[in-house]
Amino acid sequence: MPYIHTKVSNEISPEQEKSLKTQLGEAISLLPGKSEQWLMLDFEQQCHMYFQGNQNNPCAMVEVKVFGGFTGEQYEALTEKISQIFHQVLGIQPSRIYVTYSEFEHWGWNGSNF
Amino acid sequence: MPYIHTKVSNEISPEQEKSLKTQLGEAISLLPGKSEQWLMLDFEQQCHMYFQGNQNNPCAMVEVKVFGGFTGEQYEALTEKISQIFHQVLGIQPSRIYVTYSEFEHWGWNGSNF
Amino acid sequence: MPYIHTKVSNEISPEQEKSLKTQLGEAISLLPGKSEQWLMLDFEQQCHMYFQGNQNNPCAMVEVKVFGGFTGEQYEALTEKISQIFHQVLGIQPSRIYVTYSEFEHWGWNGSNF
Repeated sequence: MPYIHTKVSNEISPEQEKSLKTQLGEAISLLPGKSEQWLMLDFEQQCHMYFQGNQNNPCAMVEVKVFGGFTGEQYEALTEKISQIFHQVLGIQPSRIYVTYSEFEHWGWNGSNF
Repeated sequence: MPYIHTKVSNEISPEQEKSLKTQLGEAISLLPGKSEQWLMLDFEQQCHMYFQGNQNNPCAMVEVKVFGGFTGEQYEALTEKISQIFHQVLGIQPSRIYVTYSEFEHWGWNGSNF
Repeated sequence: MPYIHTKVSNEISPEQEKSLKTQLGEAISLLPGKSEQWLMLDFEQQCHMYFQGNQNNPCAMVEVKVFGGFTGEQYEALTEKISQIFHQVLGIQPSRIYVTYSEFEHWGWNGSNF
């Protein structure tokens, strides 16, 4: 039941979005037991974002939300991979990418909670 | 002090938005002590979302944020109701709807925190 | 590593956005150790939002996300300042502004986690 919500300040072309979708669908398996089969993705482009008080270069916020919890090492591996993906596909410098992790105890799907 | 942030991949007409607003305003009282009088709603449509790696059918993410906490049974009842509302109003299958619950300890309103 | 995500129901002109950016960059130092040097900002305007079941006046949701944690007094001071800023720049009544605080244990930047 992961949900990855991405906001970037630059544009995402349809081809880039598809590439991000595919690569994030693979990356999520760095969290044991998670896969694209339960993954929801959400991309927002051309956001009015600032990092360090400026808009000199594009930046990104990637919010990863999961049911249950994982270890610091597992999140660390996912951060490394996500940063690579956004750098490669959208040209965003990892030094302008934040990735946050939220763990949820109550998560609904198909009319009831897990 | 609940805040319900909804993102859907399909369109929401003004009439549908009004219906969602009214029904969520009633549903929130499934959480004891909460009512439309303190509810903030936020609807985003035509989001670039994917579920299970595809966009074959519309999907929705409904994020419920509350000050304080509730029981699993209370959240469960709200998930059932929210899923019904989005299915009825927007035709989204409950199997493509996620509902998440976040509890907040620090929540500001009117210039100070509760 | 704070991230402040703002959603308002009214318009934000480029000048207003710049003013919000500058003032939030100063306000964040009310949280000890935080500064604009690590701050990411994200503004969304003309959101389809409702407060207390109506759209009679503009409203705002300001979500403050931080790595680590702070005291209730520190968050309280930030709420007061943020409410003043949005009232002054966008004319939103503090009684229609929510400010929420989320603390994160896992936060990635530059390819790894803090």
